[in-house]
Amino acid sequence: MKKKQMIFGWGALLLLVFSLSAAAAAQAPAKKDILNAARNYRISNEHAIMQEYFDLLSIPNVSADRVNIRKNAEYIKMMMEKRGIQARVMETAGNPVVYGEILVPGAEQTLLFYVHYDGQPVDPSKWIDTKPFTPILRPGKLMAGGNEPKPVPIPPDDLSFNVDWRIYARGVSDDKAPLMAMMAALDGLRQAGISHRNNIKFILEGEEEAGSTNLGPFLQKHRDLLKADVLFMCDGPAYYSGDPTIFFGVRGITSIEIMVYGPNTSLHSGHYGNWAPNPGMRLSKLLASMKDDTGRVVIDGFYDTVVPLTVREKDAVRAVPDYEGDIKDNYGFIHTEGGGMTLMEAIQLPSLNINGLLSGWIGDQSRTIVPYSAAASIDIRLVKGCDPAYMRQCLIDHVKKQGYFVVSGEPDHRTRMAHPFLARIDNKESGYGAYRTSMDTPVARRLAAALRDYYEFNPVFLPTLGGSLPIYLFDEALGIPVIGISIVNHDNNQHQPNENLRIGNLWSGIETFAAVFLMESDR
Amino acid sequence: MKKKQMIFGWGALLLLVFSLSAAAAAQAPAKKDILNAARNYRISNEHAIMQEYFDLLSIPNVSADRVNIRKNAEYIKMMMEKRGIQARVMETAGNPVVYGEILVPGAEQTLLFYVHYDGQPVDPSKWIDTKPFTPILRPGKLMAGGNEPKPVPIPPDDLSFNVDWRIYARGVSDDKAPLMAMMAALDGLRQAGISHRNNIKFILEGEEEAGSTNLGPFLQKHRDLLKADVLFMCDGPAYYSGDPTIFFGVRGITSIEIMVYGPNTSLHSGHYGNWAPNPGMRLSKLLASMKDDTGRVVIDGFYDTVVPLTVREKDAVRAVPDYEGDIKDNYGFIHTEGGGMTLMEAIQLPSLNINGLLSGWIGDQSRTIVPYSAAASIDIRLVKGCDPAYMRQCLIDHVKKQGYFVVSGEPDHRTRMAHPFLARIDNKESGYGAYRTSMDTPVARRLAAALRDYYEFNPVFLPTLGGSLPIYLFDEALGIPVIGISIVNHDNNQHQPNENLRIGNLWSGIETFAAVFLMESDR
Repeated sequence: MKKKQMIFGWGALLLLVFSLSAAAAAQAPAKKDILNAARNYRISNEHAIMQEYFDLLSIPNVSADRVNIRKNAEYIKMMMEKRGIQARVMETAGNPVVYGEILVPGAEQTLLFYVHYDGQPVDPSKWIDTKPFTPILRPGKLMAGGNEPKPVPIPPDDLSFNVDWRIYARGVSDDKAPLMAMMAALDGLRQAGISHRNNIKFILEGEEEAGSTNLGPFLQKHRDLLKADVLFMCDGPAYYSGDPTIFFGVRGITSIEIMVYGPNTSLHSGHYGNWAPNPGMRLSKLLASMKDDTGRVVIDGFYDTVVPLTVREKDAVRAVPDYEGDIKDNYGFIHTEGGGMTLMEAIQLPSLNINGLLSGWIGDQSRTIVPYSAAASIDIRLVKGCDPAYMRQCLIDHVKKQGYFVVSGEPDHRTRMAHPFLARIDNKESGYGAYRTSMDTPVARRLAAALRDYYEFNPVFLPTLGGSLPIYLFDEALGIPVIGISIVNHDNNQHQPNENLRIGNLWSGIETFAAVFLMESDR
Repeated sequence: MKKKQMIFGWGALLLLVFSLSAAAAAQAPAKKDILNAARNYRISNEHAIMQEYFDLLSIPNVSADRVNIRKNAEYIKMMMEKRGIQARVMETAGNPVVYGEILVPGAEQTLLFYVHYDGQPVDPSKWIDTKPFTPILRPGKLMAGGNEPKPVPIPPDDLSFNVDWRIYARGVSDDKAPLMAMMAALDGLRQAGISHRNNIKFILEGEEEAGSTNLGPFLQKHRDLLKADVLFMCDGPAYYSGDPTIFFGVRGITSIEIMVYGPNTSLHSGHYGNWAPNPGMRLSKLLASMKDDTGRVVIDGFYDTVVPLTVREKDAVRAVPDYEGDIKDNYGFIHTEGGGMTLMEAIQLPSLNINGLLSGWIGDQSRTIVPYSAAASIDIRLVKGCDPAYMRQCLIDHVKKQGYFVVSGEPDHRTRMAHPFLARIDNKESGYGAYRTSMDTPVARRLAAALRDYYEFNPVFLPTLGGSLPIYLFDEALGIPVIGISIVNHDNNQHQPNENLRIGNLWSGIETFAAVFLMESDR
């Protein structure tokens, strides 16, 4: 774009002039005005915003609940229409997508915003004093086992909400919050008479928590409709600082399960123990061989394909505020893996994580046996350059180098009697690759410019999130940069009972999206 | 005894003369006559023996079923009385003991036989085509998943039972078989007019499968009544050869559970993995540190207190017939722990066995988390010289040497924040020591003499069983040598559904006990 602009300098200038005249009121507003517009509107309308949000949260949104999912879709369509957004409920093979757009004549760029409106399954019995779809306020955060802050009534109209209060409801953070913040941001801009020169499109998925099965085909089918310059994936928690967080990539993931074998039936540990092969000991030695004592993976080739960070990305990693002391204290540990790497450094690398172990029984159920088998469930997080199949193969090759014959499926007697060490690793296509867009693209720089300086928060810019999202679906279908925007508090109990949203995060989210809607283009 | 006999030579001779005259018909019978007496009686009375055994097996004998347990006790008392045994049902704080005795005037020695008449709990739904307390015959052994041999009727009176047929019923091998064999042996000796010069006492426990809680106090209370020269513990399966098996010891056991910690709540593996401590990896490295690659335990002090085998015991270990090929083929493995030790050599040493592992979830339940904890359940089998508390301490010290701070109970936040590596090992008194009596005592030599040479089977003499039995209770209360006699087939599905007894083992058991009843004394 930049090059094109330089080559066709006059043409671009003409186009700009045309655009400016086409979007009549679209004089570039001062950053301060945008912020004030969003904030003043919010301050004057906190109760109305809260009422609308409570109404939205009251519609159950578990992905499998088709009836209520559709009610959510219809309600969101109505919310959009109230703001002058052209909206429609579009069918997929599963839950509907809500699509909306504000097209500006002669728009300089098109911004596409992704949110999902479905939520995780709920176990109402685990919600303390509340129900998942009866949103309530609490003057603080539920702590494990403490004196729980009790639900409180909504304050009278002439009092504002305390920013540290929290709303408790399923979906309040994951992922209805960005939708509510965007709607209020549009209201604020409109009330202040600030118009934007960007086309704005919205895609709201209804089955993200059920695996996004139908998202890929939907994107492929509607790639023209969804045409844009950038996709903002509005999901996930903000950084520990609480400030709005921009991420330029996510890690990929592949999962693998390894089973090693003892005898073909559990044997008496007295009669056979320490002679018959013990699968728990075999598995322990096998797993222990995968990392050194600092936690570095010592599987051949594991780090070989990693695309190194750019100087810009390395700088960004270093610039992320340090909250490690808080995290360690929150989660009760002092020694970390990685040989002294920071958490931010660690997530720039592929990881190997044992998420499950099972052999025989423990505790009251324990039996003095040599168990039949021992299994480990492992997830490997991938960074840019790591192909899921390649990473699986590295692991399989490592197991072989430890002396194992690797089978897929249950070994038969003949196989058992042919190999001293047997490991089962089933052939599965699992997971997807990482995604990382440059922090140096024009759109990335414009976004940064839109959020920095005039903003009283300190947005956090992350080259990548540690977690995984199937951004590759958007990348494949639309071929545009994907940048994440996260506004909700990190301690929101996402995917768990007592999901919550700190009210201050909703407020700052409104200002964040106002700024993003108004971000300048490179044209 | 031997020494006393030499010092008081004439007195002993006089006593012997008196004994012989007192027990009128007690001319020392030829070994061949004893064998023939037992065998001929059995051949002529197979149907009667089987009928009586089926009746006994039809009385449910689960330890917790107090009503039927008492019916068993009364039935056994009646079985004994039919043989002229002075029998009584004696109370304990739990299930009754059946005690019986045949006192011979001027007896040269007293032999005490232990059997338990209770059985393991049953799950009738897992019994194929049969019920646990409706004994049936099958013309073969149930195989896992094969064409199961169907129940067959008892053969007509003029046909004998096939030795390879099996009786299916709870308790048929564990542990009513030795009782039935002993009763038939007494019948055979009586019919042939062969009398014995030994006092014979029987103690039948009714809650062995429930932990023998009341056995210790019972033995202590009745130590005079139970006075004897030797206790024969008639329990457990015979060696793989199928021949009657004599064992001179058992291993002790202690159990220990180790839990290591990750974060104080499960964390997202993408956001925290490979930085937050992973308990599965920690546990794997810790367990892997306990054994070398040959399976030898490398915990300091682990083998230090082991009382070495005598030359006689080493010879016995070497003389045990080699069935390792069969065992490996049966259980589907070719590589063993122990660096090439035989199974018999391996069980002469203390063992460390991982019988359970648990962390997070595996399979369909797996979640991409850094789990909260990882636990291993370990049993340590003990040989002579290994004190349970000492062995536990060796393990705890080893864990400490790996850098862990060891706590008992759940660590609090302060503890978590003070130690980089935490392991929980609760303080429990667990298990009991090993027992091993010499194979060189007079009574051991006499027993061997009674069973060798004239016998068409090849009794197996084991210095120790691999398994554990609380023989120390007898040792403490009675202070006499304890020697085990096992007659039932090793593949009897002990403690499992479809418990069974190969008929040939019952037949050879009758001959075994006839020989033992007649064993000579050293007087």
